[in-house]
Amino acid sequence: MFIRCEQAELIKKLNIVTRAVPARTTMDVLTCVVIKTIGDTINMTANNMELGIETLVIGSVEEQGTVALNAKIFTDIIRKLTGSEVTIETDTSLNTTIKCGKSVFKIPGRETTDYPPLPEIQKKYNFTISQFVLKDLINRTIFSVSTNENVKVITGEYFEAGDGELKVTALDNHRIAIRKAQIPATEGNVNAIIPAKTLNEVSKILTGEIEDTVELTFGDRVLSFEFNDTLVVTRLIEGNYLDVNRMITGDYQTKITINRQELIDSLSASLPLIPDSDNTPVVFDITDGNLNIRVRTNLGSLSSDTPITKDGEDIKIGFNPNFLIDALKAIEDESIDMYFLHQRAPGFIKNEDGTYEYVVLPVNFVDN
Amino acid sequence: MFIRCEQAELIKKLNIVTRAVPARTTMDVLTCVVIKTIGDTINMTANNMELGIETLVIGSVEEQGTVALNAKIFTDIIRKLTGSEVTIETDTSLNTTIKCGKSVFKIPGRETTDYPPLPEIQKKYNFTISQFVLKDLINRTIFSVSTNENVKVITGEYFEAGDGELKVTALDNHRIAIRKAQIPATEGNVNAIIPAKTLNEVSKILTGEIEDTVELTFGDRVLSFEFNDTLVVTRLIEGNYLDVNRMITGDYQTKITINRQELIDSLSASLPLIPDSDNTPVVFDITDGNLNIRVRTNLGSLSSDTPITKDGEDIKIGFNPNFLIDALKAIEDESIDMYFLHQRAPGFIKNEDGTYEYVVLPVNFVDN
Repeated sequence: MFIRCEQAELIKKLNIVTRAVPARTTMDVLTCVVIKTIGDTINMTANNMELGIETLVIGSVEEQGTVALNAKIFTDIIRKLTGSEVTIETDTSLNTTIKCGKSVFKIPGRETTDYPPLPEIQKKYNFTISQFVLKDLINRTIFSVSTNENVKVITGEYFEAGDGELKVTALDNHRIAIRKAQIPATEGNVNAIIPAKTLNEVSKILTGEIEDTVELTFGDRVLSFEFNDTLVVTRLIEGNYLDVNRMITGDYQTKITINRQELIDSLSASLPLIPDSDNTPVVFDITDGNLNIRVRTNLGSLSSDTPITKDGEDIKIGFNPNFLIDALKAIEDESIDMYFLHQRAPGFIKNEDGTYEYVVLPVNFVDN
Repeated sequence: MFIRCEQAELIKKLNIVTRAVPARTTMDVLTCVVIKTIGDTINMTANNMELGIETLVIGSVEEQGTVALNAKIFTDIIRKLTGSEVTIETDTSLNTTIKCGKSVFKIPGRETTDYPPLPEIQKKYNFTISQFVLKDLINRTIFSVSTNENVKVITGEYFEAGDGELKVTALDNHRIAIRKAQIPATEGNVNAIIPAKTLNEVSKILTGEIEDTVELTFGDRVLSFEFNDTLVVTRLIEGNYLDVNRMITGDYQTKITINRQELIDSLSASLPLIPDSDNTPVVFDITDGNLNIRVRTNLGSLSSDTPITKDGEDIKIGFNPNFLIDALKAIEDESIDMYFLHQRAPGFIKNEDGTYEYVVLPVNFVDN
């Protein structure tokens, strides 16, 4: 193999594929990226068996071939180069010479025959969506995904697509985040649980431009994202997702409208008084026109007032301030509506057109 | 005590004094900052017994007093405030109320009677220097200070002041960094070893403006830095510093002139091939007009050429690339001169007017 590429292009594409190189693995070959020429095109691939990424590298092919190179060393070398054109050449033993400017590197390469190919997809359903919209849906929900690997299904996000709508749900034991977006109305529908790790990586690779699109193709236990010159293939999480609709009712006794940033500020102010090991909640004391937030721990106490518009009953209810702050930071509106049913029922933050809904469980408190 | 200050002023001054709050301590009171009013002025102090910092806080005094507040909680609270004017009021039990906007915090305060005062200084020698120059001297040498606490004297920088010159020396077992600057010519002179930790903190607090000055006052085992509204007092390291002049000779067999950035680039290129645990040096192979840098490890090999101007003999000599990179990054010149005597003698980088000199010990190598 003998190829020529620009350093900047190699760095850009390595930044994409190396997201699928496992940090730890018992299969040594997975620590490599595979470079492969197919006619005039150059492909780079990495695969950690859950997530695989393949991307096109712009460059010229002088001699066909394929080689697997240690991802860390290859990336470190390419990043440190100070020229522009890079040539990569392998000999018959796959010893690889990397030349750039006046530097000549030689590193060992290895066969690609034992490198696992990306899983193939039997298409069951697919749709195309703006990269901006998909990235936004992920970023505004993924913080709610559970990190408890013992309940595998909630370590992913639940995608429900069909009838011109994509609904994304993320939840852990304390909160739920739901976002909806429009997709092209086509026949059929699909439900799938996508690993949060995959979505994190995908959201980082997506350009996030409104006019750029990404195509999602759902197969049996496998999903692919195709965008720009890149293909991401991920295994899906098997099992049944939790029935969120059962937990969410439209009932409420109290509705408040409040400035989102003022609420974030008041909740953030409580954090210095609550050590990480402490589960003391902040207490919301909602009366006409005023939300009093208070907390008392052995470090000190805080009382803070924020103006609100209130419909319905007065209520006192306790929350973990971090969970509310997470949800509030994921919302784009200047003013938000919160709904409460009673002290032991979840609090809801949602908008009228139903594009977002954040649910946070309350925490028992002793008011003093 | 009852004082008023702006939040921004409090944050700014807390960022200064809290540098002297110890991360770990067996004296619980040292985890506090002390606020004290003296007439119309407000002082904040922290002291970790090696380093003490006192600074003036701009604000108004409504009622005289003094209180010690837990530095972490107090700082966290002040940073989270979202108003501008902050009032801090203590009651007779030193319970402290912090008010800002619609938030009211109450945290416990404590007596300041057992808080250790900053050491007093009996002036032996003092001089004034531009903050920019002092910060620059520190930043361009401190990376060479030893971190080996078993040889205490080299965990500090050696300051030699007198005859209108300040000379700063830092060294560990592998390299020496020396910088000189002019100071006002006054009578007397002083030698002192200043803890690197202190210099790190001081360099962060100094504004670094050329027109701002800092006054250094040397006492018996104690040194103070006075600048802006801040006083930093540090204990000096006792003992005799190493005789660096004995290690530095003016002799050389080979002198090269090289572009500094090109040399940094060539040395940096070798790093991906040298794991942290590996002591393999890069080999300099100096011939007429060319510096060939090469390295071979079990990860691969590099050969890189850089143009030079050479006086004297050809030479091959091995170095740890990191130590050379550290020194080269601390130099401001575009083109630098390096001097070599033989394979087992240190390499020198110095300029003609003697304001800097960096010495790096060679490493044995097997050339292949």
